[in-house]
Amino acid sequence: MASKSDWKQIAEKTQGALKTKIPEAWRLPEDLVQADQRDVSHVPASCGILSDRELSITSCDATAVLQKIHNGDWSAEQVCLAFCKRAAIAQQLVNCLTEICFDEALNAARKLDQSFKATGKLKGPLHGLPISVKDHVNVAGLRSTLGYCCLADNVPNEDAVFVKALKSAGAIIFVKTTMPVTGMAIETVSQLWGRTTNGFNRALVSGGSSGGEGALVGLYGSPLGVGTDIAGSIRVPCAFNGLYGIRPSTRRLSYEGMTSNVSGGRAIAAAIGPMCHSIRDVELICQIVTKATPWEEDPGVVQKEWTTRPNVPEKLTIGLMKFDGVVMPHPPILRGLEEAAAKLKAAGHEVVEFKPYQHQRAWDIAYPLYYATGGKEMQALLDVTGEPWPPAAAKLSANPELRELSARELYKLFNQQDTYKKEYLKYWNDTSKSTSSGRPIDALLCPINPCASYPHDFLTWWGYAAQWNLLDYPGVIIPVGFVDNARDLQNASYKPISDTDKTHHDLYEPSLWHNAPISLQLVGRQFEDERLLAVGAVVDKVVNGVSG
Amino acid sequence: MASKSDWKQIAEKTQGALKTKIPEAWRLPEDLVQADQRDVSHVPASCGILSDRELSITSCDATAVLQKIHNGDWSAEQVCLAFCKRAAIAQQLVNCLTEICFDEALNAARKLDQSFKATGKLKGPLHGLPISVKDHVNVAGLRSTLGYCCLADNVPNEDAVFVKALKSAGAIIFVKTTMPVTGMAIETVSQLWGRTTNGFNRALVSGGSSGGEGALVGLYGSPLGVGTDIAGSIRVPCAFNGLYGIRPSTRRLSYEGMTSNVSGGRAIAAAIGPMCHSIRDVELICQIVTKATPWEEDPGVVQKEWTTRPNVPEKLTIGLMKFDGVVMPHPPILRGLEEAAAKLKAAGHEVVEFKPYQHQRAWDIAYPLYYATGGKEMQALLDVTGEPWPPAAAKLSANPELRELSARELYKLFNQQDTYKKEYLKYWNDTSKSTSSGRPIDALLCPINPCASYPHDFLTWWGYAAQWNLLDYPGVIIPVGFVDNARDLQNASYKPISDTDKTHHDLYEPSLWHNAPISLQLVGRQFEDERLLAVGAVVDKVVNGVSG
Repeated sequence: MASKSDWKQIAEKTQGALKTKIPEAWRLPEDLVQADQRDVSHVPASCGILSDRELSITSCDATAVLQKIHNGDWSAEQVCLAFCKRAAIAQQLVNCLTEICFDEALNAARKLDQSFKATGKLKGPLHGLPISVKDHVNVAGLRSTLGYCCLADNVPNEDAVFVKALKSAGAIIFVKTTMPVTGMAIETVSQLWGRTTNGFNRALVSGGSSGGEGALVGLYGSPLGVGTDIAGSIRVPCAFNGLYGIRPSTRRLSYEGMTSNVSGGRAIAAAIGPMCHSIRDVELICQIVTKATPWEEDPGVVQKEWTTRPNVPEKLTIGLMKFDGVVMPHPPILRGLEEAAAKLKAAGHEVVEFKPYQHQRAWDIAYPLYYATGGKEMQALLDVTGEPWPPAAAKLSANPELRELSARELYKLFNQQDTYKKEYLKYWNDTSKSTSSGRPIDALLCPINPCASYPHDFLTWWGYAAQWNLLDYPGVIIPVGFVDNARDLQNASYKPISDTDKTHHDLYEPSLWHNAPISLQLVGRQFEDERLLAVGAVVDKVVNGVSG
Repeated sequence: MASKSDWKQIAEKTQGALKTKIPEAWRLPEDLVQADQRDVSHVPASCGILSDRELSITSCDATAVLQKIHNGDWSAEQVCLAFCKRAAIAQQLVNCLTEICFDEALNAARKLDQSFKATGKLKGPLHGLPISVKDHVNVAGLRSTLGYCCLADNVPNEDAVFVKALKSAGAIIFVKTTMPVTGMAIETVSQLWGRTTNGFNRALVSGGSSGGEGALVGLYGSPLGVGTDIAGSIRVPCAFNGLYGIRPSTRRLSYEGMTSNVSGGRAIAAAIGPMCHSIRDVELICQIVTKATPWEEDPGVVQKEWTTRPNVPEKLTIGLMKFDGVVMPHPPILRGLEEAAAKLKAAGHEVVEFKPYQHQRAWDIAYPLYYATGGKEMQALLDVTGEPWPPAAAKLSANPELRELSARELYKLFNQQDTYKKEYLKYWNDTSKSTSSGRPIDALLCPINPCASYPHDFLTWWGYAAQWNLLDYPGVIIPVGFVDNARDLQNASYKPISDTDKTHHDLYEPSLWHNAPISLQLVGRQFEDERLLAVGAVVDKVVNGVSG
């Protein structure tokens, strides 16, 4: 184990070793991209490292890639090589990787090609799909660091149950991706791996905690990534990088096999899920990992089939919540919501206003639950090598007001959570009184964060994300456009209602945000994940004109 | 609120008021039953209070009662009256009731009859079925005391979600039944309600904590009761009174609307379920309350249909665990298991030995989890009126070694529970290596308690029951016979392996146990409740020759 103040050497050595994994031929010329260049999203296509076919391959969603492999148009090796190249480029642009296994992945792809050629049989429905995996999701033989210098060499010898299912279905894990140290941040920075930036605007964060996935998949450096979410960690980086993704209801997909700060938490459970380029990809992955009957291995999973896309009413009723009553979203987020609502109405759907139900109260329950042990495990792991907290994480996690709770205090919070969940369910169901269908809303359209990304080291309001973790309502992210500094002007007439609200309000500056993706969150009731995705597919088609 | 040392007056007044609810005509002659008469199971039939038809009615399981009501052979009123009479008799024999609502129930039955006559339509699948409900399961307008004197007048104004579903289906709640104060006992005694005894042998306990249900339904004073189980509280009283019942996987049936010592516990969850006279009755109730979509009201319920009885293999493989490695079961329990195994083999099924997997370790995790807050809430509720602990509950719950845990200690135990659950699931699934089918065992046949009931105020070993609460594996109880003092002799050659084992061994005396029901527990994997009941129906048919 490392001793105090070793952290700088560890970080230097670890990052240095990672750099050597990028082949010379895939290195970007030093002068191609300036350090202060914000938008680097076009670089993978313009840098000349990928062939036209490789650019075609890496512009597909996972379903399209799989179709091409399975019908013989592309070999698994071709696909793998294309994504390895593009991931290498992404790494040089936004610093999103922790493990690079290009050689192993290409070998695995060649084997799949040989076997397919010889037998005509696919290994499984993900035959040949390269997949990226967030740092702390265990993959046998690859490190799980959680961003801590003291865990730089922590290499689990068993795959997470979720990863096992992907591999069995024929997927190839080719990289692992960055997360903020501790995991409790909505941006991605650690002493061990440095800072991950947003490929659409590197002055802004890629989100977190699955921020490496967000940045990588956002640049199409991977067709599909695996993230985790206890307070927005799948949804926020999906939103900040223009991706689709789901934080499913907990206990639907196996969370067994993660490296964590503290085990045994029952307060607010984390969930695992895909981060990708289409709703159909989300559905594909959820169905495949559930077909693998994870409950035979993980007692934490509910034995419940993930059904194929269910039918939803032709005329949907969508709740619209623009403001949670705590922090007013920035102008581009409000525009995204309003434009989506207008399109939905124009397409014949019903949009009803949904007033938030005591969202500050939800955060006041959730925050101490996230830190029931006072964050002591985090501090202890940092202390091993003496590494300092990153600024935003420190504000949240090293708050001196946080302390270890007693069992009675914890039970009291659990009880408050239970009570709030009951009240919210009733509140949600009572929307049936104000819909023309007489049904409760089919889903709730709302922000996932007040901002379309934000500058580094800012502590943002977590409520739009954590609200649904506390309730355990699934949330799906749908990208809808990009910030336009000519259109998304500051709202000078808005009067903030609190200090937190003012901090966010004052932060917004159209030119700084230009080109950042705008995404929306669609929320459904607990366990109605399949139905939420089905509604999401309709909304996506209406709003984005895509059908998938 | 009552003041200190009021408990005697409260108990006297409360019990006195209850007595007045029994009509004069249904009172047993004082000299009919001697105070020391053990077996009173024949009294309801021999006392002359019930007509022949009423004896027929009260010898049916719920399904048979419902068939007769629904095809017009019996009116709901006739059925209700029969069970009111028999419950009144049971109360005088074994002291099992806390609320008596004969008049209200008969009125409700008459209304159902009128409506059925007028419209030809049943209110629902339970139209006219009298149902008894355990004390702390809330029924609007009836008291929920949890056995505490200070809660003698606690009357909730809303039905538990489970109760609501039963009522909507046409059931009539006609009595509520006793439980031990605190609920944390496997016998049923409180200062408030006195002691509930076992109708088959009043020198023995009726079990607990749903011991009032066990005693009442055991004497056919109710066709079906509602119990709850956090450590055996449905299964033990079912077993001690010759009943069928299930502790389902938690989160399958709604536990919303209970009066509890402490809210918010996440350690080991309690479950609710039916206690009755057949497997088919168990299935009926579970299906009906799940069809009522309890998840629309209770966020604690998994949105998962309760399917009709699934098919199971023609040749079953049953694991047999006679001894958990901690406390050797008494001779009648061992005989019950061995006879059942022999019958299963003779019927062509496979029976394989199942060695217990570290059951003492399970209890060492479960015990502090049951008392994570140090039992302080219980003591505080007793202190309100100054009432003393009953002896056995005191030994378990007022143990000075128990103390309130810190969040970190609690998380450590949660983590130990998670780890043990994973290990046990693997261990269970690995039985596939020793079965002829290559499948894991279809169910595990084992004791639910080392004893077929036991004398009052004895602290028994909870492990055979609590083991499955810790793991959250469903358990079904199947009665198989009665203790026979001529056959179930002491085993003088057994050498106890511990003090606890010796205490149980030394306790057994055939003549004291004569006529106590012998029952077995059948355990299945988490969430496979329907399949477990289907296997149970096969086992029941083989062992008892009944088909239901």
